[in-house]
Amino acid sequence: ASVDKGVDFANYFCTYGYLYHQKEMLADRVRMDAYFNAVFQNKHHFQGKVVLDVGTGSGILAIWCAQAGARKVYAVEATKMADHARELVRGNNVDDIVEVIEGSIEDVTLPEKVDVIISEWMGYFLLRESMFDSVICARDRWLKPDGVMYPSHARMWIAPIRSGLGDQKMNDFESAMRDWHCFVEDTENNYGVNMNILTKPFQEEHEKYYLKTSLWSNLHPDQLIGTAAVIKEIDCLTASVDEIRVVTSKFSLPINMDRTRLSALAGWFDVHFRGNKQNPAKNEIELTTAPSVENSTHWGQQVFMLHPVLRVNEGDELLISFSMHRSKENHRLMNVGLSYELQQSSGKRLPAVISKLYIE
Amino acid sequence: ASVDKGVDFANYFCTYGYLYHQKEMLADRVRMDAYFNAVFQNKHHFQGKVVLDVGTGSGILAIWCAQAGARKVYAVEATKMADHARELVRGNNVDDIVEVIEGSIEDVTLPEKVDVIISEWMGYFLLRESMFDSVICARDRWLKPDGVMYPSHARMWIAPIRSGLGDQKMNDFESAMRDWHCFVEDTENNYGVNMNILTKPFQEEHEKYYLKTSLWSNLHPDQLIGTAAVIKEIDCLTASVDEIRVVTSKFSLPINMDRTRLSALAGWFDVHFRGNKQNPAKNEIELTTAPSVENSTHWGQQVFMLHPVLRVNEGDELLISFSMHRSKENHRLMNVGLSYELQQSSGKRLPAVISKLYIE
Ligand SMILES: Nc1ncnc2c1ncn2[C@@H]1O[C@H](CSCC[C@H](N)C(=O)O)[C@@H](O)[C@H]1O
Ligand SMILES: Nc1ncnc2c1ncn2[C@@H]1O[C@H](CSCC[C@H](N)C(=O)O)[C@@H](O)[C@H]1O
Repeated sequence: ASVDKGVDFANYFCTYGYLYHQKEMLADRVRMDAYFNAVFQNKHHFQGKVVLDVGTGSGILAIWCAQAGARKVYAVEATKMADHARELVRGNNVDDIVEVIEGSIEDVTLPEKVDVIISEWMGYFLLRESMFDSVICARDRWLKPDGVMYPSHARMWIAPIRSGLGDQKMNDFESAMRDWHCFVEDTENNYGVNMNILTKPFQEEHEKYYLKTSLWSNLHPDQLIGTAAVIKEIDCLTASVDEIRVVTSKFSLPINMDRTRLSALAGWFDVHFRGNKQNPAKNEIELTTAPSVENSTHWGQQVFMLHPVLRVNEGDELLISFSMHRSKENHRLMNVGLSYELQQSSGKRLPAVISKLYIE
Repeated sequence: ASVDKGVDFANYFCTYGYLYHQKEMLADRVRMDAYFNAVFQNKHHFQGKVVLDVGTGSGILAIWCAQAGARKVYAVEATKMADHARELVRGNNVDDIVEVIEGSIEDVTLPEKVDVIISEWMGYFLLRESMFDSVICARDRWLKPDGVMYPSHARMWIAPIRSGLGDQKMNDFESAMRDWHCFVEDTENNYGVNMNILTKPFQEEHEKYYLKTSLWSNLHPDQLIGTAAVIKEIDCLTASVDEIRVVTSKFSLPINMDRTRLSALAGWFDVHFRGNKQNPAKNEIELTTAPSVENSTHWGQQVFMLHPVLRVNEGDELLISFSMHRSKENHRLMNVGLSYELQQSSGKRLPAVISKLYIE
């Protein structure tokens, strides 16, 4: 299924055209520190080199690369933000090095191959937005055989958590349904039309919205009630779109807290800047979006609610089969299939629960 | 400029695909009562007649027309809501009369011409959404020469008001700018990049968002501080797209309250169901979205903030030149040009203020 560019722009790119949104990313200290340190603590990767910044936004990463000694930086941005990036580049006196190009990376032609590709392409739970596709496309077309990817590696994590969010959403859902029932009665009484036949689709629409759509949250580490598992590892130098189009994983999550409620799974990611085998980083930098008190990010974590909530104890184990693929209607959103069983420390295994969830 | 259908769907139609949104309209008692009474108090327009419902949504108007005695109702809906409408029609036993057709009215072919076109096409301040274009298209193609439009007439109103909304938004704007200045300082200190060159575009973006975009509000009639003026009248039977593409009006608003603040203009609309000359309504029905305590609607009013606020007195008069045209980027949104002068009762006239505003 090919993507209509105009539609993709209306659904996706439009928000990146606002300085408001770029600033949100630029004000994320964890994100900024990671890229800043990755570049300036590994200047050998940049000095005298040619760099491509995929999705330069405000131009920040491109400017850093120039400041770290790059000979030339191509900074490609699909939205009108390119104009602001060009201004910022000029205002910081690196316009002799950074060339801002407005256009989709898929359509752009560069005059030469590059030594480094840098990009901040990560969406919620890593793959939402599917922007890594564009980085892969850039890599296959423009990176020299011995080139370096910034970041070089990425991982997806899942952990069992306790949280009041699910109860809250369940309340919202139930109150929406109560309201619907009143509405059906009123409409019949006042306007002689029976709406009951829409009760089921209304309920399904609202279940999806309130209960099955993952929630953005900045969790406290205390909310983790077991060990997190890596469900996907990506080598940015070799990954193909086929490798990320579908993510499947079977894994188990040991519960390490007694008498608590398993109310949700949390998903997050980290990325690393390691250079490559022939040309490793001097200082490896990590950017993690795991639950944290001091170092939370604008990505937060994605919370997948489990209904009903399970009572769990230390020593229990949650056996999970997870799959994530792209939504048919919008390839930048994700559908998640989850099937899980609780293996109690007593040896008893509760019946499997299967659910479909959405990352919107 | 022709409209990309996929983009229009992503930007506009998508929300109408949700029962959640349809229910908001179905729960608007003022709206519902007006259409209900218009149909059932004027059954002579429907009995034995052929009706076209442009944008049937849930199908509600089409069902009423059938219940009022129509021989046949074509109910056209662009979104997947058409499936729900079909269900609702069946559930209310009028599927022998109502035929739900999924498609844009612009693309649909009917087997016959119709006696009545009914449609609820009104957006904020009447013309936002530009859906009346589709009704005009339907009328020119499918209405019999002596056919009737439901509603038959529409008017746009503007009035001077007092409101705290503008101060609140000014505070939000100023606090966003203070925050920006801190951000610029932090980014320079921590990351060696000077963002100051983006201060002006950031400020412009935020002025537009906080100060120049009209606000939805349900005003209290007490907030009116002068006489409202009709700035546009539309005869739905004869209006052309050219007539509504641009709305211009010069008018004056007498202030009728002493020692108060003129902080905004409010815009709203009403529509009437009068039938036509040869075949008038037995009972004329009005649907008004004017400020009201008991009869507020989901449309509310659009508030256009005036900065700075003017001190006004009884006997003053506001002389206004108003123009509204469609946004180039999205023909369903509006740009407003406003120029106004205060003529004080003393005879003194304050200098004219000119401003550009947006209905988003
Ligand atoms: N295929 C593509 N071609 C060009 N730009 C793209 C793209 N896909 C996404 N982008 C842009 O990539 C940016 C990602 S956000 C990161 C912005 C900037 N590099 C920073 O780190 O602050 C957005 O501005 C988006 O518009
Ligand atoms: N050009 C077009 N062709 C078909 N449907 C359209 C249309 N433009 C707008 N619509 C539909 O018109 C509806 C307007 S909302 C009104 C819904 C319903 N008649 C009611 O009164 O409750 C939406 O469902 C929208 O999807």
